[in-house]
Parts: sequence; structure tokens; C-alpha cells
Amino acid sequence: MTDYSILETINAPADLKKLELSKLPLLCQEMRQAILNRVSKIGGHVGPNLGVVELAVALHYVFESPKDKIIWDVSHQSYPHKILTGRKAAFIDDSRFGECSGFTAPEESEHDIFTIGHTSTSVSLAYGLAKARDTLGNKENIIAIIGDGSLSGGEAFEGLDNAAELGTNFIVIINDNEMSIAKNHGGIYGNLAKLRASKGNASDNYFKAIGFDYQYVENGNNAAELIKVLQQAKDTQKPLVIHVHTLKGCGYKPATEDKEHFHWTTPFDLKTGKNLETSSSENYGTIIADYLDKKAAADKRIMVINAGTPGALCLQEYREKHPSQYIDAGIAEEHAVASASGMAHYGIKPVALFFGGFIQRAYDQVSQDLCINKSPAVMIIEGTGISGGDVTHLSIFDIPLLSNIPNLVCLAPSTKEETLKMLDWALEQTDFPVAIRTPWEAPSHLTHAPKAEIKLGKFEITKQGEKVAIFGLGSFLELAERTAAALEQQGINATIINPRFSSLLDKELLEEISQKHDTIITLEDGCTSGGFGEKIARFFAEKGIKTYCFGANKEFTNRVSATELYRRYKLSPAEIIKTVLK
Amino acid sequence: MTDYSILETINAPADLKKLELSKLPLLCQEMRQAILNRVSKIGGHVGPNLGVVELAVALHYVFESPKDKIIWDVSHQSYPHKILTGRKAAFIDDSRFGECSGFTAPEESEHDIFTIGHTSTSVSLAYGLAKARDTLGNKENIIAIIGDGSLSGGEAFEGLDNAAELGTNFIVIINDNEMSIAKNHGGIYGNLAKLRASKGNASDNYFKAIGFDYQYVENGNNAAELIKVLQQAKDTQKPLVIHVHTLKGCGYKPATEDKEHFHWTTPFDLKTGKNLETSSSENYGTIIADYLDKKAAADKRIMVINAGTPGALCLQEYREKHPSQYIDAGIAEEHAVASASGMAHYGIKPVALFFGGFIQRAYDQVSQDLCINKSPAVMIIEGTGISGGDVTHLSIFDIPLLSNIPNLVCLAPSTKEETLKMLDWALEQTDFPVAIRTPWEAPSHLTHAPKAEIKLGKFEITKQGEKVAIFGLGSFLELAERTAAALEQQGINATIINPRFSSLLDKELLEEISQKHDTIITLEDGCTSGGFGEKIARFFAEKGIKTYCFGANKEFTNRVSATELYRRYKLSPAEIIKTVLK
Repeated sequence: MTDYSILETINAPADLKKLELSKLPLLCQEMRQAILNRVSKIGGHVGPNLGVVELAVALHYVFESPKDKIIWDVSHQSYPHKILTGRKAAFIDDSRFGECSGFTAPEESEHDIFTIGHTSTSVSLAYGLAKARDTLGNKENIIAIIGDGSLSGGEAFEGLDNAAELGTNFIVIINDNEMSIAKNHGGIYGNLAKLRASKGNASDNYFKAIGFDYQYVENGNNAAELIKVLQQAKDTQKPLVIHVHTLKGCGYKPATEDKEHFHWTTPFDLKTGKNLETSSSENYGTIIADYLDKKAAADKRIMVINAGTPGALCLQEYREKHPSQYIDAGIAEEHAVASASGMAHYGIKPVALFFGGFIQRAYDQVSQDLCINKSPAVMIIEGTGISGGDVTHLSIFDIPLLSNIPNLVCLAPSTKEETLKMLDWALEQTDFPVAIRTPWEAPSHLTHAPKAEIKLGKFEITKQGEKVAIFGLGSFLELAERTAAALEQQGINATIINPRFSSLLDKELLEEISQKHDTIITLEDGCTSGGFGEKIARFFAEKGIKTYCFGANKEFTNRVSATELYRRYKLSPAEIIKTVLK
Repeated sequence: MTDYSILETINAPADLKKLELSKLPLLCQEMRQAILNRVSKIGGHVGPNLGVVELAVALHYVFESPKDKIIWDVSHQSYPHKILTGRKAAFIDDSRFGECSGFTAPEESEHDIFTIGHTSTSVSLAYGLAKARDTLGNKENIIAIIGDGSLSGGEAFEGLDNAAELGTNFIVIINDNEMSIAKNHGGIYGNLAKLRASKGNASDNYFKAIGFDYQYVENGNNAAELIKVLQQAKDTQKPLVIHVHTLKGCGYKPATEDKEHFHWTTPFDLKTGKNLETSSSENYGTIIADYLDKKAAADKRIMVINAGTPGALCLQEYREKHPSQYIDAGIAEEHAVASASGMAHYGIKPVALFFGGFIQRAYDQVSQDLCINKSPAVMIIEGTGISGGDVTHLSIFDIPLLSNIPNLVCLAPSTKEETLKMLDWALEQTDFPVAIRTPWEAPSHLTHAPKAEIKLGKFEITKQGEKVAIFGLGSFLELAERTAAALEQQGINATIINPRFSSLLDKELLEEISQKHDTIITLEDGCTSGGFGEKIARFFAEKGIKTYCFGANKEFTNRVSATELYRRYKLSPAEIIKTVLK
């Protein structure tokens, strides 16, 4: 039985404050055990949390949360904070893991101010609180904790730039573990390195340049040292940056030895650090990475770009093999898209990969820098579709987001083979920017797999029938097949269409369909509001032909299982047929 | 007759290079005359262009455009560049003003690399070119010119942060005229002030902190001084920032005396600087500013936020009267939205105003920081709808962009009175973030003006009829009325619906409509792809009721008149009726 003898006494920050300083190292050790207990069994963010145990302890030792407001950037490092604020059971009791999420969540605790999951937002959110506090004449401390990796995002700069002018209490803690998810990229990291090397005394201090007071803490994994500094900082009446040097993965050797792998991981053996299950099924990430590997070897103009997430995109091997054809922009999606436009304009073939919902961080750049300029860059949006993920990490909004931007060709492949065909097509043409969305897992076998060559704006009829026509976009072509099979049992020979394009209507084909069909079904693996199906519905509505759109509702879901969501959205042949034939 | 004796000899940069240095001041004087000739007669950006005449001359004197690539941020200061690159006629010949736009435009000249109109994009676009150049083994210079005002945008930081690591030729010219569109806001401006005061020698240099080499030019309105510096910089093999101090409006006294007014202005009398025509018709900007003025006086919790565009939003008077209830975030839309969420969360009533398409710069913040957190902040999107504007300044995409985000209540008022009602409603409720979109001009009188109170998700039938139902969203309720009037002449008594909400469907009312109508028409003043009408079409398509959506096509238009666009999109009662009754 693991020893949690100190942790057992901590049910709220008030309990922590009763502890003698000398007890804190032991508490931190127990907290690390608790974190490792959870992540080794159900996966999660490992390194980020192990690195800030002392910081979380020091913050709650010194400040009066929730009166003083602590905002964790991205909040994937909020486990120690959760442990100290009444949620330790979700770490030490295996039967209660489900009681808390991996991000700050106001519905869990009054100590979590915002629901946060994207990077670089904490300073702006905290600025809003500070401005409100000042307006209402209150006096509490507002503290934003932001990692060095998140500093590369434009929103963080905008927040710091504005907060520097506040003139009242505002504390920004830079949690500098010398890492983003992967290696940091950007000139600012040179500055952080110099500041670390000089113990905060290097010239041309980025934070002072923006207008902050500045203090450096060499040993950010020493609670007592942190407490001393925070006690001095408490109630400061000027914006202050405290630059804290921490060790990512601190206290768990495998995590400090392979920081990138242990940023986030699936369950692993605590003794060896080896992952317990390695998924053997082929996924789109590896399929695409292999394709790019071959392409890059054959064509020096291929340039792979990503925004700080090489691991999630399976690009580590590619990165090693093609260093001069690989750019990690850091967590800077806006720059990733705009620079891809510049490269494409010059004749390079940029392929910018984004994981799920993160492309939405660059809408203006997709529209202005890329699409108005018609630069033929390729974007790949991976890991899309309905999932049981956290509310901040849903990937169902990319179809409405991207498909309604002029000049952008949006493709949704239904199989692995079609994905490769679409990539070929996208890289060969030079007229349009292209976005290709892929789900995470490769789909099951299709009876009527796509055969036709990709042609701009051309849908494909994979099975000709009559009366009922089913449009199965991308990975949902498989659901279209299953629905058609179920209809066949009722004596209906449905037509199946693989639209391929979510941004264009093949009006010739639609006209043809309208001749011999009186019921239209659209299926898409994403939010239907503003999406593909509504465009089809609009076309057929002009003719008075009944049309039904299936896909995700317009809603934020938070860790609701895919199974439950499929039920809710009627995404089964039986439910679809019931709705349509009612 | 104005004297253009030197300018007459300049048809391309090659001609400029033949001039002796001593002739340049006279050339600059003639260029200023040319710029003032144009802007005084047809309006445009005045101060930004007058300030960079010498810089444009020096750049084209030293570098070999278009081989060397010069990227102007926002590009509203590209008039001198246009004059030097074959387009002087559009400035000196009144009959040829139409030949060039106010922004860089590749279709006009090979010297214009990108179509640019939003701020803070130049460094990322230029980085893309530089990376492509290096990949292909080329050697030309890549130069981005960015104003101090644009530095507050996150995309500029992301670009600088990445470009600092290039390790090859890359020149960023900071055009520091000590102004954004209005006064600069942000801590970085303190750093620029120190750098100016110390002639570039202040400690904690922002650009050096990011990793750039740095040089300061005190007199950026002296062509010879600039040429000397640029000649030294040419072919640099390291990323270099040249910080050039210029005078906004230089050479035209009224423009240097009121820099904010002369940033962009309508036609004016050259002698006095007074505007020729002052629009007497009431516009939504003033209506909303007056409302906020009264609200703020009555309620200290009202906080008005904007992102660097107080003039376009008619907020100057408000700014003077309520300094403690006014925030200009600088050109930093992401921060503006995220901080509004923070304030609303704390009980303040933030009202964040955006001009037209600029809200699209903050999609991720609207979704993540605001809507997932359900912070009851109010956003007002002004100047929306179909217009003859530049391609970079269209405001027709906000309905698809915002209406498909969960939790966001999107309102479109049809009249001034309804606008005020909606503002009241939005500020009183505390459950949802709200976006209100307004057109630029107040609409004409409505026969069947809205009467009902605003109620979440409730549409209003303003005229009950039968058979044909017309949904006129926001400002297009007036078009719905005109269409209904035209139908009446054909013996059809159409129903008119004021939907009010573009993000919600009033299903009860829609069911009612479906009982007594067989033809549905939707009208919206924006892009229909992904917009409001398609949601209505989807609803009625399930019932097989014919539905027709009218609004803007999914396309980027560039200075195509509203009259022509209305014709193209069939936005007249006659064309609507012809389409529907065919």
C-alpha cells in the first residue's frame, strides 16, 4: 500500500497552510505518487504535472484560493492543483479516477476559474479578471501560470503586452521547463536560455522589454524557495513576471529521460516506463507520415509544417529523416498557416498538419493569408470527428469552419487509399489551397470502395440505386454503406454517394440524383450546423425533395462517450431509417 | 498645374536608381502631392502613406524589386510603393484613380507579392518566402515592413519569433510613427519609446530579446540616411530589424496635427483639411456609441472594449467621457475577446466592439475562452453585410463563422429600435455570450416594424399571410417587406418573419409556418454558405417544403459595387419572385 500519510490530511488549501515547511518535500513526494498512480493506469499528461508539484504547493501555501485567482494555461498541468483542492481521490483511488478531468473545470471545484484546454490563453483571461477586480474596487491577487512552450502563441503575447500596462496587482508565473510538447521553437527561447544561464540577469530581457517587473527562481522544484519568492510577490501593486525554472517530469526518471514521450502518454508500466498497450491498428497519422516521408525523399520542394505537435501527428520519424524539409513553428498556428502561404506562393509545396480543433486558431490566416491569395498549400486536419474527448479538444467544427471559406478546397477521404489519392491530387494541382480532414482510426473495409480519380468538384456514386440517396462524407461513407445494406433488407435499393468535397456541390450529379430519388440522407462526422449536409439540404429544398442531415448537434460535449453521442445523434442504420421513413 | 517633373521620369524602380541622391527630396515632395491629390478627392489612408514616402524611395533605390521581395504589412501604406512601381497615373490623373486599389494587389503589379489588408501578417508571409528561397538555393533579399501599431497583433509576434531563427537573410523594417490607427496600447510601446529616446541604445530591447540583430534610424523621413542604412543591410545573412522612426502624415500639416483623423479619411479640402461631405444619415456606429454612453454613465460595470479601431466604431467621444470604462486592446482581437470573457466571468459587463471582418481574427477565443465558458460578454459586429469593399475587408462571413458556435447567441437587428432592444436584452441576461451584427447604415422605415419583446430563440411574425413565408434576417427584413409588397400585387399575401436570431431556430414557429405555407424564402445580408438560410432550408427540407435561400455567394469579391453584387445575387423583389415562382 502506497503511503499517503501527509496527503491524507489535505482536503483543502487551508489544510496545506497548517503544514510546517519541512513537511512539504514529503507531501510533494506523495503527490507525485498519486499523479503517477493515475496516469500510469489511465494515461494523461505526465511530465507537465510532475514538474509543477512544488509550484502548486507553494501557490496554495501562499495565496488564498479561490479568493486569489489562479489561472493555469492549457491546464494540462493542473493535477497537483486538483490534488490540493479537494480532488485527491481522483488520483489515489482507482475507482474514482472518473471524478475529475485532465483540465481545469469550474464544475469540479471553485478553485478552477475557467474551462481551459487550448494554449496561450491564461494571461488574457487573467487580465480580464484583474480589470474587473480593479473596476469593482477589490484587492485580491490574480495569478496566471504559463509554460515556456505556450509563450510562442500569439494570444500569450497579446495578453502580456496588455497586462504590462495594468498598473495594479498581476502576477505571471513562467513555468520554464525548457520544453514545449516537443523541443521549443522560436527566438524567444534563446532569451529564456540566457536568462536561465545568467540566473535572470541577462540583458535584453523579453519580459522587461514588454514592461513587466521580473524575478528569476533557479530551483522551481524547491517548495520553500518558491514560497519565499511568492510571499514577497503577494499583493504586489505592479505587473510582475516570476520566471520559475522547473524540471519537466521531475521525480520520475523515465519522464525526465524522455520528456517528449512523457508529455502525454497512454497507460504505462510504472517500473519500466514502457507503455502497456500499443495499438496495432493502422491510423491515419502513420499513413500520412509514411506518405510524406516518401514524397519528401523524392521532391525537395515538399515542406512539412506543424505547430508544436509532432507526436500527435506521428511526425517524429519524419523529423529525424528530413530535418531540412520539416518546420515546427512552435505553438503558433497563425504563423504556420501564413508562412505556408508564403512558401506555396514561391513554388514550394508546404503541407501543414494540424491536430483536430487546433486549426480553428488560424481562421483569419486561412481566409486572408492563404485563400484570398489562392496559395496552393495543403493542410491536413487529423483526428477529426465525433469523440468522447474533453470539451476543449473536440474536433467536430472544422467542416463549418473551413468549408465556407471561398477558394479553399475541402476534402474528406473515406479510406486509406482515397487519402493517398487526395494527397497526390492536392500536391499536384497549383490552383487552390486544399484542406484534407481525416479521422483518427482507419475505417473498416468498404464493399463499394471509391474507384474514380479525384476531379475538382466531382462526387462519386459508389452504388447506383433509386428512391433513397445517401451521401456519406469521408469516414461516414462506411455508415452510408451499412445504412444502405439495412434498407436493402426492406426492399429499398439505395444509392450511395461519396461526396469527397465538403466545400463544393457537384450540381450535375445532384440534378441527376433529383430525377430518380425522393429521399435524401446526408451523413457527416462533425457538426451539421453550417456543415456539409445543410448545403445538400438547401439544394434539394429548392426542389421540394425530402432531405435529412445526420451528424453531430451544435453543442459542446465534455467527456461524453462516442457511443453515447452516436446514440444521441441517431448515427446507426436503424435510427437513420426510423427517422427517414417515419 | 502641379509640377511632377521628376516623377514623370519614374516608370519603374530602375528609373529611380538613375536619380542623384540630391534629387530625392524633390521626388518625395512630388510623390506627396500625388498622394494628396488622390486621397483628398476620393479618400483613403493619408497619414500612413505620407509617413513612408522616403522609406519606399529608399527601398526601391537600394533593393531590386521584384527579385528582392518587399512585403508591406496591412499594405494601406503602399501608395508610395505603387507610385514608384508603374502606377503613378492612379495618383496624378484623376480619371485613372480606379486603376489601383488601396492595398497591395498582385493583379496590379509584379512588385506586389500578396493581397494584404489585415494587420500583423507580413512577417509570417515573408518568412514563408525566405524559407522557400533557402530551400531552392536562391539568394535575394526578403523584406517585411511592419508598423508599430501592427506589432500588438499576435500573428506579428509569432512571425518574429520564428523568423529570428532563420539564420539567413531576412530584414524586418519597423515603421515606427508612434501611432496605431489611434494611440498605441500595450507594454511594447514603452520599449519602442525608450529605444527612440536612446537612439536605439536602451536596455531590454524587444527585438534583440527575440533574437534579431537591431539597428535604429532616427530620421526615417530622410531618404539619404535610409539609403545608407539599407545599403549596409542589403544581403545580410542574419535576421535583422531596422527600427525606423517616421512621422505619420509627414509633409501635410493637418495630417501631422490630427494623426488619428487622418489615418483614413473621406475626401477633404486640401487647403483646410476639412472633410468635404459629412454624412448626415444616422449610422449604427453612432447609435450604438450613444447607447453605450448612457449605459456606462448609469452602470459602472459597463466596460467597452475595442481592438485598435475606435474611429471606425465612433467611440472617440465615449473614450473621452468614460476613460475608466474603456479599453483599447490595440490590434489584438484575440486578447480583446479572451479578456472580455474574464471580465464577464467576474461580473463586469463587457461590450466588445469589432469592425466587420476583424472578429474572424479571434474565432478560437470566441469558441474556447468565451463560449465554452459561457461568459455573458456582449460582442457587437459593426459594418457587416454585402458591400463594394476591398477583398480583404469584406464583412459577409460572420454569420457562418459565429452562428455555428455552441452557446453563442447571435442576433441581427432589423431597425435602430430593435438594436437598442437587443442591447438591453443582451446586457440584462447573464446566461450566454451574445453577438449582435449591425449593418453600416440605418435601414429605411419598415411598414411592419418588429414589436415583440426579445425572447431567447423566438422569431417574430411581423405580417401574417399564407402560402409564401419570407424570413428577412436583420437589415434584410426591409427587403422581405418589399418582396412581400411585390407579391401582393400578384395576389399573394405572404407572411413576413423577423428571425432576430441567426444561431437558433424557433421550431415552434417553424412548425406553424409549415402548416400553411408551401414556399419559403430566406434573405440574409451575408454569405449564405453555412449561414442562416441553410438552417431554415434544412428544417423545411425534412418536410419536402420548397425553400430558397438568398444572400451573398461564397466568393471573395474585390471592389465590386454593391449594386452589381445585388444584381448577381438576385437581391431584388423582382428577381426573388422570378426565381421562386419559376
